Amino acid sequence: MRGIFEDELKKLHGKFTEMGINVSEAIYRASKSFIDHDKALAQQVIDHDEQINEEEVNLEDQALMLIALQQPVATDFRRIIIVLKASSDLERIGDHAVGIARESIELKGEHRVAEIEDDIAEMTNNVRAMLEEVLDAYVKEDAMEAKRIADANQKIDDAYVEVREKTIATMKQDAKVITGSTSYLMVASYLERIGDHIGNVAEWVVYNKTGHIAELTPDQHPEAK
Amino acid sequence: MRGIFEDELKKLHGKFTEMGINVSEAIYRASKSFIDHDKALAQQVIDHDEQINEEEVNLEDQALMLIALQQPVATDFRRIIIVLKASSDLERIGDHAVGIARESIELKGEHRVAEIEDDIAEMTNNVRAMLEEVLDAYVKEDAMEAKRIADANQKIDDAYVEVREKTIATMKQDAKVITGSTSYLMVASYLERIGDHIGNVAEWVVYNKTGHIAELTPDQHPEAK
Repeated sequence: MRGIFEDELKKLHGKFTEMGINVSEAIYRASKSFIDHDKALAQQVIDHDEQINEEEVNLEDQALMLIALQQPVATDFRRIIIVLKASSDLERIGDHAVGIARESIELKGEHRVAEIEDDIAEMTNNVRAMLEEVLDAYVKEDAMEAKRIADANQKIDDAYVEVREKTIATMKQDAKVITGSTSYLMVASYLERIGDHIGNVAEWVVYNKTGHIAELTPDQHPEAK
Repeated sequence: MRGIFEDELKKLHGKFTEMGINVSEAIYRASKSFIDHDKALAQQVIDHDEQINEEEVNLEDQALMLIALQQPVATDFRRIIIVLKASSDLERIGDHAVGIARESIELKGEHRVAEIEDDIAEMTNNVRAMLEEVLDAYVKEDAMEAKRIADANQKIDDAYVEVREKTIATMKQDAKVITGSTSYLMVASYLERIGDHIGNVAEWVVYNKTGHIAELTPDQHPEAK
């Protein structure tokens, strides 16, 4: 029985990682569509989201069946629960990627601000790096690394505050950029929330090790200075 | 065994409803703090969120233990799963209430626009009515009513688009309101997402009845016209 359980759990972890990689690609493409004003790519992200949602449902089904059929011991129980919980964070990240893609379509022929778009591109890179790190920590069950990643989320929060302040300043200087700038605000807020979800995944990695739910990212809503 | 299971499930449902009511109050207080410029009330919402998070963790623990210990049959299995999934939506709604409360604090002495604040107040009332209706449909396991609620979410999406457009128009007319108006955008987007989570809870009520995950709210990200 135990051998089967380990095999099934490995499969489950494999599928989780696969879902994580798909979500990371969704962020990349959504943000690229936004920066490159590429509506076709944005539409691809929106269409692809259905698949990410299905991946989550499949993961859940498998995780729950594993609990129901195998009656795992406490530590194994935890290893299944984190799949259940973390997959819901990944799915939500996918939703935010869709949100970014929709803003790309929204932006139409609006006036652009190159400097803010550069900041958003950098924020995207940082968020994706964090996501890939947390997937890695997940596979390695590395709680120390997960803690470090959760701490690094502060950088994303700071970037959000910076983009928000810069956007406000730009809107005040030039009314022509106001409509487009509301999209910058939304995209930055999506990226900030993606950072929070990555922080949540990191918390589940720690929980897996310790059995305690650590609130590693207590201040999930950054405040402007 | 079956008698105990039913009792435990009833307790679980009772706790879920209790959590729902707490979350509904959090929305109310957050929005009130925003409209009344009441920072003390906003801080209360932020402080109270910890309790909502704990309620979710407790619900999860109990739901998972019930699965592990009772090995429920398929239909009962579903009734537990919806608690697990829907509680995560409620928790997220609580997070968005915190987001609104933080914007109240953010807004400081910024210039206000009464008309937009009225729209936000109305949006809040509609969102809360929807949440209370969905909790009711949940208790009654009323899938028809849940479908109606999910459809009604379109109204919230429309309200979001309207607030966004009105805010943009106001910012263009008067640069003094720009800083404060970014808070309007954020609060409206939080309310819109709360509507989506209520739609999710409605979907779980339908799932409970049918065993199929219905995508009742396929277009969760409203587009401006």
